Amino acid sequence: MRAKIYIRYKDGILDPQGTTVGHALNSMGYDAIHDVSVGKFIEMNFNDVTKEEAERLTDESCRKLLSNPNTESYKFEIVED
Amino acid sequence: MRAKIYIRYKDGILDPQGTTVGHALNSMGYDAIHDVSVGKFIEMNFNDVTKEEAERLTDESCRKLLSNPNTESYKFEIVED
Repeated sequence: MRAKIYIRYKDGILDPQGTTVGHALNSMGYDAIHDVSVGKFIEMNFNDVTKEEAERLTDESCRKLLSNPNTESYKFEIVED
Repeated sequence: MRAKIYIRYKDGILDPQGTTVGHALNSMGYDAIHDVSVGKFIEMNFNDVTKEEAERLTDESCRKLLSNPNTESYKFEIVED
């Protein structure tokens, strides 16, 4: 069992890395690209848990450690493989 | 049109941030979690391009700027919204 977690800045929160990457792409000639945001992509694996348990553990991990509740939002999916 | 890009370390490449997060979660009592990896989740928007053009631009952006070809692999999807 595996979780894929996507963390991004909330709307309205300044994302300096995203802004910098967007400017870099524009200056390389990619003019059609705008509004770049850079967040985190976290994967973690589980030993012997049900899908419901994995969802609970992932949500708790996001709230208690992985994301900053003031500035970031998260989504995740549980993959069985 | 929007691209969602997922960048992670290739297998075998040391991921110190992932290791640290995994240890932190274990020490918080989440013993079922192991093998944590921390990568990047990048979103970017496009002006007036076809889906094929967006795929090409995203792939080029990943190869030329966003990912490190020595240590990282990337996947992306194009979302029409």
